[in-house]
Amino acid sequence: LLARSQPSSSVGDVRERDLIARIQQRLPPAPDWVILGIGDDGAVVEPERNRVEVLSTDAFVEGVHFDRAFVPPEAIGHRALAASLSDLAAMGASPRLALLSLALPTELPLADFDGVVDGIALLARRTRLCVVGGNLTRSTGPLIIDVTVMGTVKRRQALTRGGARPGDELYVSGTIGSAAAGLCLLRQNAGTVPLSASSVVERYLHPEPRLRLGMQLARNRAASACMDLSDGFSDAIHQVAEASRVGAIIDGDALPMDPVATGVFESRGLDPLMEAIAGGDDYELLVAVRPNVRARFRAAARPDVSVTRVGVCTAERKVVLRRQGRADSLPRGGYTHFGA
Amino acid sequence: LLARSQPSSSVGDVRERDLIARIQQRLPPAPDWVILGIGDDGAVVEPERNRVEVLSTDAFVEGVHFDRAFVPPEAIGHRALAASLSDLAAMGASPRLALLSLALPTELPLADFDGVVDGIALLARRTRLCVVGGNLTRSTGPLIIDVTVMGTVKRRQALTRGGARPGDELYVSGTIGSAAAGLCLLRQNAGTVPLSASSVVERYLHPEPRLRLGMQLARNRAASACMDLSDGFSDAIHQVAEASRVGAIIDGDALPMDPVATGVFESRGLDPLMEAIAGGDDYELLVAVRPNVRARFRAAARPDVSVTRVGVCTAERKVVLRRQGRADSLPRGGYTHFGA
Repeated sequence: LLARSQPSSSVGDVRERDLIARIQQRLPPAPDWVILGIGDDGAVVEPERNRVEVLSTDAFVEGVHFDRAFVPPEAIGHRALAASLSDLAAMGASPRLALLSLALPTELPLADFDGVVDGIALLARRTRLCVVGGNLTRSTGPLIIDVTVMGTVKRRQALTRGGARPGDELYVSGTIGSAAAGLCLLRQNAGTVPLSASSVVERYLHPEPRLRLGMQLARNRAASACMDLSDGFSDAIHQVAEASRVGAIIDGDALPMDPVATGVFESRGLDPLMEAIAGGDDYELLVAVRPNVRARFRAAARPDVSVTRVGVCTAERKVVLRRQGRADSLPRGGYTHFGA
Repeated sequence: LLARSQPSSSVGDVRERDLIARIQQRLPPAPDWVILGIGDDGAVVEPERNRVEVLSTDAFVEGVHFDRAFVPPEAIGHRALAASLSDLAAMGASPRLALLSLALPTELPLADFDGVVDGIALLARRTRLCVVGGNLTRSTGPLIIDVTVMGTVKRRQALTRGGARPGDELYVSGTIGSAAAGLCLLRQNAGTVPLSASSVVERYLHPEPRLRLGMQLARNRAASACMDLSDGFSDAIHQVAEASRVGAIIDGDALPMDPVATGVFESRGLDPLMEAIAGGDDYELLVAVRPNVRARFRAAARPDVSVTRVGVCTAERKVVLRRQGRADSLPRGGYTHFGA
């Protein structure tokens, strides 16, 4: 009891029900389709009429997906939820509900717990996502945030990875490599980075899931395939190519990069393009578009985020990178071995 | 590549996509309401008509909820899924779908990974639960299995903790304390236990979520409140009493125990009743029943599992344990501090 009133309390000093109450305090009131929210054996919700449901789970593991040494608690929460929301964006779904499963080291400061929850709650509020339940448990190791989300979309409008055809144009939203550059800076400077680098640091700490773009593309049917870049551009283009049974030619010189990111990589003697292609955590969308609906696609994207044409789908099932006149097979990137 | 062909491979030697393929091989074909299953950014499913949805998440953490030293991989998988299914049972819901999020230490033997998945897949198949997606990640610490389940129930039939009234009778299914006794034996004997103890060891390793009982109670409306005993009988009776704003008198001499469990506790100088009341992992149901529907309740339970009347709800908001003529306030049990 004494421990609870100390400013340096950790989650291990607090009762589970009090931790749940702290989460509830940070969440907005539930909408009326939530029949029973947090507090029973399960949540009870009314499904949305005339829509199909999109479900996705993502885990954020300390030491694998984030480092508490230089990522503030609120950004940890934001990123964990953004990763799941990005999957909904890539399917063209509107966010509906989430379940949070938190595995907490008992020595986690209570203020950090509150910060993680704040990061989740703020993004949930902004995207009209209702947290209907979840689970709290002790962790004997890392802090783990597991988020399951459900969104909805009209049945024939769900975007998939598998609909691209030879001749379809390939676009990405925003920039690539920014989050990787931001992480690079944060890691080397242990949390203190020059103000001039804030654009890329922000892209790492507070990625913006492209929900509006995804929903627009679902509605106006301008996308033949869509996927998010969570594991990097190279991984995404290979996944879309495989699922759609096509190949692709990527124009390396066209890939959209933040000049700050280019500078970060160059100053470390790295090839900016290859870093940007391999780097993850961008949460932008890769979209395949039939040439005859190009205008419709650009109109859908305009109010929300810039989109850049980066290549074309081919019948020959190879992924090729063209740069400065040369054409090479694009390395898949991302990790190939689970243990890597 | 070499490592993959060795019999002693661990998950760190294998590509993520190959681990996913190993999971898919173990799962039955998806039903036709699954529009898009494992393999895209999210799963797409058609909601069930005229039903509401029940959602629940449970995490199973190595070193907190299980010990790999004496719980076989297949039982780890079974228990992780059974815990989530038990929440659906307590709400009266029919299982529909699950998402699995696994955080894997890279040194986890591949055979153990397969075993965990087998345990999940077998129970999923038997309960007609479709695994539609999930997530795999490395863990820098313990093995963690996070299961999110969705079930469905008719809108006015969902069972909650909050409907008990003074005068309602209290029942439990099966026995209490068996899993705690089984765990006690497994822990002391490092996995080798006498055959005569198999009943309680089985209750720990392979708990049976009371799905059929829950669904029957939802249909025939014989339960005024229901909760599962995952955190122990004492925790459950306190939760139901609080949510329903009632008290309870529990008849200690009536609590159903397996004689093997009684023997296990007695041989260690422990009070069997108090161990059974505090012990968790039983996954039985605690049910409140209006006296005038008692016959209907018993009829619902009969084909599935024994039920025992263990007490009555009272207007006075205290939970009292009567045994051998004495009446004491019942300790809440379970952990009070998150770090305990």
